[in-house]
Amino acid sequence: MDLAIILDSNLSKSLHQQLYEQLRQAILSGRLAPGERIPSTRFLAKSLSISRFTVTTSYEQLLSEGYLETVKGAGTFVCQQIPDNLIELKPIECIEKSNASSIKLSQYGKTLADIENVPRISEPKLQINFRYGTPALSEFPIKIWRRLLSRYCNASFNWLDYSQEPNGYQPLREAIKRYLARCRAVNCEPEQILITNGTQQALDLILRLLIEPRETIAIENPGYLSARIIFETQQAQILPVSVDSSGLLVKELANQTEKNVRLVYVTPSHQFPTGAILSLPRRLELLNWAQQNGALIIEDDYDSEFRYGEKPIPALQGLDTSDSVLYIGTFSKVLFPSLRIGYLVLPRSLVAIFARAKWLSDRHLPILEQQALTDFIESGYLERHIRKMRSIYNQRRQTLVKAIKKHFGKRAQILGEKAGIHVMVRFKSSLSDEEIIKSAAKVGIGMMSAKPHYLTAHSRCEFIFGYGELTETQLTEGIRKLAEIMFR
Amino acid sequence: MDLAIILDSNLSKSLHQQLYEQLRQAILSGRLAPGERIPSTRFLAKSLSISRFTVTTSYEQLLSEGYLETVKGAGTFVCQQIPDNLIELKPIECIEKSNASSIKLSQYGKTLADIENVPRISEPKLQINFRYGTPALSEFPIKIWRRLLSRYCNASFNWLDYSQEPNGYQPLREAIKRYLARCRAVNCEPEQILITNGTQQALDLILRLLIEPRETIAIENPGYLSARIIFETQQAQILPVSVDSSGLLVKELANQTEKNVRLVYVTPSHQFPTGAILSLPRRLELLNWAQQNGALIIEDDYDSEFRYGEKPIPALQGLDTSDSVLYIGTFSKVLFPSLRIGYLVLPRSLVAIFARAKWLSDRHLPILEQQALTDFIESGYLERHIRKMRSIYNQRRQTLVKAIKKHFGKRAQILGEKAGIHVMVRFKSSLSDEEIIKSAAKVGIGMMSAKPHYLTAHSRCEFIFGYGELTETQLTEGIRKLAEIMFR
Repeated sequence: MDLAIILDSNLSKSLHQQLYEQLRQAILSGRLAPGERIPSTRFLAKSLSISRFTVTTSYEQLLSEGYLETVKGAGTFVCQQIPDNLIELKPIECIEKSNASSIKLSQYGKTLADIENVPRISEPKLQINFRYGTPALSEFPIKIWRRLLSRYCNASFNWLDYSQEPNGYQPLREAIKRYLARCRAVNCEPEQILITNGTQQALDLILRLLIEPRETIAIENPGYLSARIIFETQQAQILPVSVDSSGLLVKELANQTEKNVRLVYVTPSHQFPTGAILSLPRRLELLNWAQQNGALIIEDDYDSEFRYGEKPIPALQGLDTSDSVLYIGTFSKVLFPSLRIGYLVLPRSLVAIFARAKWLSDRHLPILEQQALTDFIESGYLERHIRKMRSIYNQRRQTLVKAIKKHFGKRAQILGEKAGIHVMVRFKSSLSDEEIIKSAAKVGIGMMSAKPHYLTAHSRCEFIFGYGELTETQLTEGIRKLAEIMFR
Repeated sequence: MDLAIILDSNLSKSLHQQLYEQLRQAILSGRLAPGERIPSTRFLAKSLSISRFTVTTSYEQLLSEGYLETVKGAGTFVCQQIPDNLIELKPIECIEKSNASSIKLSQYGKTLADIENVPRISEPKLQINFRYGTPALSEFPIKIWRRLLSRYCNASFNWLDYSQEPNGYQPLREAIKRYLARCRAVNCEPEQILITNGTQQALDLILRLLIEPRETIAIENPGYLSARIIFETQQAQILPVSVDSSGLLVKELANQTEKNVRLVYVTPSHQFPTGAILSLPRRLELLNWAQQNGALIIEDDYDSEFRYGEKPIPALQGLDTSDSVLYIGTFSKVLFPSLRIGYLVLPRSLVAIFARAKWLSDRHLPILEQQALTDFIESGYLERHIRKMRSIYNQRRQTLVKAIKKHFGKRAQILGEKAGIHVMVRFKSSLSDEEIIKSAAKVGIGMMSAKPHYLTAHSRCEFIFGYGELTETQLTEGIRKLAEIMFR
């Protein structure tokens, strides 16, 4: 342990007095915490190039004043019982609030600071939370995962070094290519794949590299708020385009040629939040429109793995013939979110610049997890896990839908139940969204209004029901209680 | 396994013909790879909602034409022996080159594409590589690391979910705070620490949030190239400031008031690449200048843990009284680079906006590694490892210095050997840097010129010698061979 201490033999103050004062200050300011061990006199003397006597004198003074204490055979420690009023605790400003800094921010920083509705990071713990986004984590085959991590952690020292592949571990890109070809009809070479820290980084890189302030991005309305916020921080013009039960209304988009749309953001497998599946004719129409207008499409395929009884429709990427699609996938939903691994399938002409941008933003992803994930995919665990989860989610989905129908009947319309791990529900109710959320929270139920995902005025009383992490009992019970509240 | 296939019963073509053609196309385009198993007829029929007879008919045609083969008891597979000339392999453009895309890039994208000297990502394998940056990986206590990962991987399912802390795992921030207080005299609360994907992301976030195009950033000359490239991509004006044996010449900076410098980037513990340690008077002078001019200081403390016989000088951050310093640290040098964990200590007023930016860029770091690292620090393994490595590096450093003195004598001047894991050497030689690098590579020796780190004309023949990952034999042998080449 080093203690960064500056002694100056030119000062009139003695060295042991200087040392005493600096140690005392370190203890009072909390730099040295109560109970923390401090270096031996011998060690400190050597490291500061002063006599051991000087150190001993300072320590003795601190011991006699109660700042330090010795434990026989264990060493010298900062005293546990320093009165609280001696320690100068500096209060920390609320960190969730936007800053009122004297430090000048960039335009990006200012825009970011001004955004009102960054989705809440910290959430209250509720008994039954119908929040969207979390898969059934307790079903994750954690023992297999641990075994794979252990295997690679042991295998060699090579993986500890920097990777020479900013775009991601080559075998992982090959595994993802094969997986996407088999399951999503995505047509690409491993070289077109960029491994990212989740969907979020994929979106961020796309916006940074391709969009200038005031250029227009079309998004689904309602649409995924976290994507929209990234577009807003990049100061893009946002053009909302309506969705119906077949997904994005491409005609509405095509009618606005004067808007000069550079990019369209879509969630075709399970539109967020309405759950609509973009029909094949609409897909072809969208691709055609993009080609005609030289626009790009961001295809966010966030939970396409979960479909119930529907035939898979090929990804836009696989139908595309003009390099118009940037395809985003993630392991957050099929495996677990804190893995932080997603991927971006790029048109060939963008591969080099994205690899550069990734290298300059944060070099590359941790390698150990990429190795484990490669094995997880190649050994068939991924597809096995997806099949298992599809069946579990299907059960939960049916339970949820049944409960809503039973307790709400015609007062609830369920949307988008054919895929994914959430549905959207339109309620007939005289209560406001806020009133419903508040009353629900009182009985331990977490509700997620669809409102923040709308860019324009919308029909009240639409809620997103994530069912991925809730048991069938919780789902039934949650809906029953909710009905009680809403029709009390 | 899903095969994304579209069948249209409205077409005149029969369903089995459509299926046959699409499977054949998938095989020919490589979407289905040779040797890959395809779904059973029953599974595929169910998943496409068609009769099993239709699937069987298509499979039989593909079997008879040699696209598929059956293995008794195992299933149906894509044939291993499809002639290569049948498969349409699309060539991949060189991805290392900057792009000549028809897709319009943003200003950031264009600037990035135009940068000439992005440090090489892929390096030729050489027997003895004096490259800078890699620690002695084989000394890393990998068994302890594996045990810690295993422990947390097993402990619960909680960590699999999204973190509610974009700024990093709270116990890790507390452990880093204590470590920094003890060893670097950095004075902060855990709330001021942002865990980042290495130094690179810390720099990238600072630039994005604080710097507008054409604002001025002062950097050491010579100075760390990777940092400068980030500044350039953000289109900052770069002001080079000279360094001498006491580090940055603050007077030179102070004389340029008309430049309106917003930010200074320094490496005070071991200036990169000269190895100078910024003296205490210069530190105080720099802090004073920053305070007077309302400028910020980025203190990149990339390998401060390794000092040989020098007293530690407190970090600028700990000496600062006016919230002018953004302190960057990393575990890439003390642990291993592919961990991708670094940290940024922020002035309090910037904490909230940086947490937002991190959340929007990529949410947060993987949690498992953060947990393991916390334990690694708190159980004393980190400081034990640093002590061990300091002693190993000290040996290597002495061996390197001795070898250079022996073989080069007065024809080499060694700089910056008092800290870090590299030295810089000024050679007297009639050869150009390029000639030396070329001849050295021929005998298996990798050399790193200091030239790219200079912004202005510089003295020729300066090289960076990283000694972290080289054994004493390699060091002696490498220098001996080098002398042979240079004085042949």
